[in-house]
Formats: sequence, C-alpha cells, structure tokens
Amino acid sequence: MAEDSVQIVLVAPRNPLNIGAAARAMSNFGFFQLRLVNPYEVAFKEARSAVGASNILENAKVFDNLAAAVSDCTLVAGTTAVSHRDLHVPLYPLQAAAQLIREEASRARVALLFGSEKFGLSNADMSHCRWLTRIPTRDEHGSMNLGQAVAVCLYELRRSAAEQEFRFPAAAPAAAEDLERLTALLLDLLARSGYVQERTSGSTELKIRRLVRRLSLPAADAETWLGILRQILWKLKQEKDE
Amino acid sequence: MAEDSVQIVLVAPRNPLNIGAAARAMSNFGFFQLRLVNPYEVAFKEARSAVGASNILENAKVFDNLAAAVSDCTLVAGTTAVSHRDLHVPLYPLQAAAQLIREEASRARVALLFGSEKFGLSNADMSHCRWLTRIPTRDEHGSMNLGQAVAVCLYELRRSAAEQEFRFPAAAPAAAEDLERLTALLLDLLARSGYVQERTSGSTELKIRRLVRRLSLPAADAETWLGILRQILWKLKQEKDE
Repeated sequence: MAEDSVQIVLVAPRNPLNIGAAARAMSNFGFFQLRLVNPYEVAFKEARSAVGASNILENAKVFDNLAAAVSDCTLVAGTTAVSHRDLHVPLYPLQAAAQLIREEASRARVALLFGSEKFGLSNADMSHCRWLTRIPTRDEHGSMNLGQAVAVCLYELRRSAAEQEFRFPAAAPAAAEDLERLTALLLDLLARSGYVQERTSGSTELKIRRLVRRLSLPAADAETWLGILRQILWKLKQEKDE
Repeated sequence: MAEDSVQIVLVAPRNPLNIGAAARAMSNFGFFQLRLVNPYEVAFKEARSAVGASNILENAKVFDNLAAAVSDCTLVAGTTAVSHRDLHVPLYPLQAAAQLIREEASRARVALLFGSEKFGLSNADMSHCRWLTRIPTRDEHGSMNLGQAVAVCLYELRRSAAEQEFRFPAAAPAAAEDLERLTALLLDLLARSGYVQERTSGSTELKIRRLVRRLSLPAADAETWLGILRQILWKLKQEKDE
C-alpha cells in the first residue's frame, strides 16, 4: 500500500471520544489521512483539543458532503453492521474487502467510510460506494462501537503484511544425561523424605523416570532444577546429621 | 471453541467507558465470560449502571488477585504493547496466539489477560502467563486503547471460523447481442447529436464497439441502459421533428 493512499472517512460522527478513538487506532496501525463529513462541530472541536490529540486530528479535513470528501478516490468502500437488509450494493466479508483495498491502494486513492454511531451509513451514503464490507459480528449484536470498528478494519488491512509464517521457537530440550541426573537426585530425595520406602525399588524408579521425561524440561532450565534438588538434598542430609 | 471457555480478564481497569467497551466487543464477537481483577470500584459500578450495560457486565466476576481469577484455567495468556523489553515469557504474534487459544479452548478453559489502561500488565501479572501476545501496531505508537485492543483480539479469535473461502460473486455479463444493440443505439445517438460526423464511419464504429465492451456491463443492467438510450434517441428525434 502506498503511504497515505487510504482515507478514513467518518460520516456525521457525533461523539468526540469516538473521533479520538478512531484517530488513535489510525496512528496505531499507521494510517494518517482522516476526513470528516458533517461532524457534530462541538464533538470535533472537543476531540481536537483533547490531551494527546494527534497530528491526525489536527490535519483532518472536514467536508460538508460525502461526494466532495471522496471525489479524488478511485475506490469508495463503506462499512455496515447490516447483513440482511437489501443493500443494493455488493457486500464483501472484511478479509476479502481488505484484499481489494490493499490492491487498489497500491496504485490509487481509496476511501473507507464509517457511518454515524447511531445510524451507520444512510442509503444515500451507500449509493456512493462501489461495495460494502461487514465485520463478522454476531447477528444478535452486530453493531460495533465506532472506534472499535475502525480499529478492527485497520488491523485487518495491516494483517496480511504481518502474516509471514511464524514458527513457534521450540526451547532446546534437556539432554538425557541431565534428565537422568535429575531422576537420580529426585529418587534420593524421595527415599530420604520417606515418599518411597525403598530407594532401590525398581518399579518406583521406572515411574519416576517416566514422570521426569513427561516434563519436557528445557535445556536452559536443567541446571536450575538440579541446583534446587541438590540444595534440598543438602538440607535433608544436614537435618539428619543434627 | 467450546462455549464460554474463553475468559476475558481485565486487570486493574480504571475507566468505566473502557470496561463497557470491552464488554460490548465481547458481545459483538460472542464471548460472554468477563472477569475483573481489582477494578477501580467507582469505574466498575459506573460501567454496570450505564444505559445498555450488558448481561456480560452484570455477570462479570470480580477478584482481588490475579492468581484467583485464573485458577481454573489451563492456559493463561497475556497481552502487551511492548515488543522490545525483555519479557521473560515467550511473545507470539496475535495470529499464532489466536490459534493456540482456539486449540486449548476446545478442551479446557483459557484466560486472556488485558492490563490497566496506563501501565498494561505488570511483570508480576506476566509471571502468571504461559506466554504473551502483541497486536501488530506501529513501534512508534504501540499502545492501544483497552476497548479497541479487546475488540481486535476477539476479532482475530473469531476470524478463522469466518475464513471460509470467499468468492466474489461475478455478476452475469451481458450477452454479445445486448452489447451490439447498445452499440448500435449509441452510434445512432452520436451521429444524431453531431458527436460523429458520419454514422457509417467504420473506424468510429470500431472505437465505440470496443468502448462498450470495456464496460463489463452486467446482464441485469442491459435492459436499463438500452431503455435509457432509446428514450434519449426518441427525444432527439422528437426535437428534430418540431
């Protein structure tokens, strides 16, 4: 995606906290172009003057109609919480939508529209959109908070870039000789503490050996565990001598 | 994921709006088990008494220490905005973390921890975690709003389920005969309106034919366009007769 090619457009936002939250999510995910269409003026002023208000809010552009706000964009995409209403415009899942936005934003300007907190985008707003997208929320409670919806959409837009294959770093496992030393120490401790009656009981030894192997002890921790057991053993021997 | 197997744990939240926003995102994405550790009491009361406060807040469980809050969970995972600090605990990208949570949640109880708005999870909190995860925000502005962070994590947890292959529904394209009728009408209009001098100019006809084919006209819209052009043509002829 070319820098600054995605325009986040809030249509008729009412709540300064939501405007601020949208700007914060934009900053979190590296989007800096905010446009507002007919914001409630008091709300916008309050958001701009809030402590920690960002450059994004300072540089936000305000328009009095949606057509003007998106006139320089080649793709205009809207968001909606509605999945059942006949929308007259194609509705794509967010993942697919994000892919289309990334493609278009690599060569031209894209506008992603969010409607007002209470009503979302109107049918008139939607008629400016090539298509709509919907965050996969529950049917029973589809409508998201504006700031949270912006955050989720921008996360999805950045997600693929972060999607490179991740391999869980496997901790190097302890070598068999460490496990065996641990087993021996443990058996000694168990015998001295009375947990097992006979130190030499073969079946006990096998049980303890298997128990230790099931720990998947990391190599880096082996010495620590051996030290702990040695210390306890030392203390037990000392007590006995007293 | 088994129903209700994921516990969302807010550690020392301070702001009622954030507690409410976390609960709203939980409801949006279908998670219903909220636990709070040492919430600022005034904030929790205010969140619970807010208009539209959910069952989730009503049923939230409050604990005075983290160990108690997660005692029945087999996987305790923390969230952090920090990527550079030596965390002493494995740090996994959110996508990989979500996969691990889904796996564990299919057979046991999982706790996903979010720290306080100002400080995040403390080192002591993190020591209860098997691993940590981080939302891929910008290094320059990593720290997300609490409610937005919860929304993004829960979206990612639900994302794979919604990830079934999506195919863009291709609109059935108009048949060649419709395109040719459209081309003929358009050529007639262009000749009558003086846009082209000679109706029969071969090169103009080819240009217009190609122009129409580049529209990728949907079959469902062909009749509408033909109707529009016929109406204009009728008007032009009428004007001429007057």
